[in-house]
Amino acid sequence: MEARETIRHGGDLDEARRLFPDAPTPWIDLSTGINPVPYPCPALEASLLTRLPAPEDARALEAAAASAYGADPAQVVAAPGTQALIGWLPVLRPASRVAVVGPTYAEHAAAWRGAGHHVATVPNLAAAMQAEVAVVVNPNNPDGRVAGRGALAEAAAILAARGGLLVVDEAFADLEPVESLCGEVPAGAVVLRSFGKTYGLAGLRLGFAVARDPLAGRLRRSLGPWAVSGPAIAVGRAALADRAWRETAAAARGRDAARLDRLLTGAGGRLVGGTRLFRTADFPDAPALFARLGRAGLFVRRFEAAPARLRFGLPGDAGAWARLEGALA
Amino acid sequence: MEARETIRHGGDLDEARRLFPDAPTPWIDLSTGINPVPYPCPALEASLLTRLPAPEDARALEAAAASAYGADPAQVVAAPGTQALIGWLPVLRPASRVAVVGPTYAEHAAAWRGAGHHVATVPNLAAAMQAEVAVVVNPNNPDGRVAGRGALAEAAAILAARGGLLVVDEAFADLEPVESLCGEVPAGAVVLRSFGKTYGLAGLRLGFAVARDPLAGRLRRSLGPWAVSGPAIAVGRAALADRAWRETAAAARGRDAARLDRLLTGAGGRLVGGTRLFRTADFPDAPALFARLGRAGLFVRRFEAAPARLRFGLPGDAGAWARLEGALA
Repeated sequence: MEARETIRHGGDLDEARRLFPDAPTPWIDLSTGINPVPYPCPALEASLLTRLPAPEDARALEAAAASAYGADPAQVVAAPGTQALIGWLPVLRPASRVAVVGPTYAEHAAAWRGAGHHVATVPNLAAAMQAEVAVVVNPNNPDGRVAGRGALAEAAAILAARGGLLVVDEAFADLEPVESLCGEVPAGAVVLRSFGKTYGLAGLRLGFAVARDPLAGRLRRSLGPWAVSGPAIAVGRAALADRAWRETAAAARGRDAARLDRLLTGAGGRLVGGTRLFRTADFPDAPALFARLGRAGLFVRRFEAAPARLRFGLPGDAGAWARLEGALA
Repeated sequence: MEARETIRHGGDLDEARRLFPDAPTPWIDLSTGINPVPYPCPALEASLLTRLPAPEDARALEAAAASAYGADPAQVVAAPGTQALIGWLPVLRPASRVAVVGPTYAEHAAAWRGAGHHVATVPNLAAAMQAEVAVVVNPNNPDGRVAGRGALAEAAAILAARGGLLVVDEAFADLEPVESLCGEVPAGAVVLRSFGKTYGLAGLRLGFAVARDPLAGRLRRSLGPWAVSGPAIAVGRAALADRAWRETAAAARGRDAARLDRLLTGAGGRLVGGTRLFRTADFPDAPALFARLGRAGLFVRRFEAAPARLRFGLPGDAGAWARLEGALA
């Protein structure tokens, strides 16, 4: 098997079990930015599994996403998770100079590098303007940094003028007051939207690209007529159409995020930022805190390149909050 | 939206309803090659939807597929349906001369053409040896034609010598006595295996590529760490490990196929071939028969390029058999 660049991700509880075999179970997984209070799934009819999804149903899913994101339905392309889009976008271009605004979600740089591009991590969008492809996560993971719509549109124009591409990963934009590019995607830009994080349904595998043609058409063609599973279409249609649930979730996760900030600050953390689905802070002795949490059955996210930093997902119930409060006390 | 080459597929009951609005319902869909008696799905835990699939679980799925296909687990790459692989394989190569042995499943030629390759349909494998990429569906859809392992290995060697690729789509191989290439995939070849057809679970979206490195690694990298949904991993692991179910299904669908052959012959059809999941025949007046079946609520597959030809999936229960027998009488 060809070596794959090894990237540590949140959500790998097998790693947690290896590191802390004596921790109390069940594990409380705070290592992801996935909403711990999932959308209440409608009952799934058996035919969603047995039949090929009808083209009309996939188009209806994209229309629901377009409505939720304020996008043009013709520019929305459903995919089995945004990770698939992150993996395949680099294959669509000849070898290019790629600038990833980081530190950020590691799969972007890895995907472009793996497809033979020359990748540099740059500290901000302005520094990315010498490249042919720029990647921005907005809001950024893990620090929550936000880029404005004007700056992104300007960057897209600069890149488009040289045949380049601006990738804006809005994976965590759903519950934030961020300025989305979905409403008016510039030429030479593609916006990625994640479904599983907001709706707490990461195992469903659903995400979207929002782009003008020809890129939207190229993605649609390569993903093919049954890109997304029957369950993902059914659940996605229901959830994306449910504005009330989304507004309630944004308010509730906002309260959770503020509560988590107070806990982290009280434990000596210096807040770096985050979104309503995760909070990031630096600690005087982050490795010791990571181990203390681990021994208490709480798995959080650490970063090899920033050893003082930890990222916390939101506890999902009173028991999880209590265990976290106890471990941080 | 960029124009997508329009390909008619089986399974599109919306088309059936448009064509025959007065047909009795529910429709009996014989337009696909999907097993009408699905694998009995295990109960799906909620965590399969809420959590990101663990890397270990995805590897266990690939190991189960390797065992079922007689392949090396390191050469098996899980994907959200083989259609995704059909769509993305052409993006991995520079513009090439591509020969598709046909007539066959139309998405192969469309995918290569859509990605900018020069595509010709050729009548047999030997005629494909002037190209850089050859595509063979084995057994072929819709005529059931079978290519031998020796001829395919020889073709792969010829293509590999010029840096080419042999794509062998074994979508319908599971229940057939066909000589699979999975056990010893030649250099320069990729084998595609479909899950949804055999197990009657096309809405789940699951399929596999079997290839040596570096191609396996390139596919794995682009598909990313969570290529396949939680439900697909759980159901796939159970079903692919269930040899007894597969053997029973092969025998039962073989009896169904023989019964269907007798019906089609009795209705004036000249059998062309097929697999244990579909049968294809030419008829003196296929358009009239298609319409007669449609008015009876039976949707079968027709072919623009072969107007005398119809393909029949297997009826799934006594009621479906009775309605088909009545309409053909």
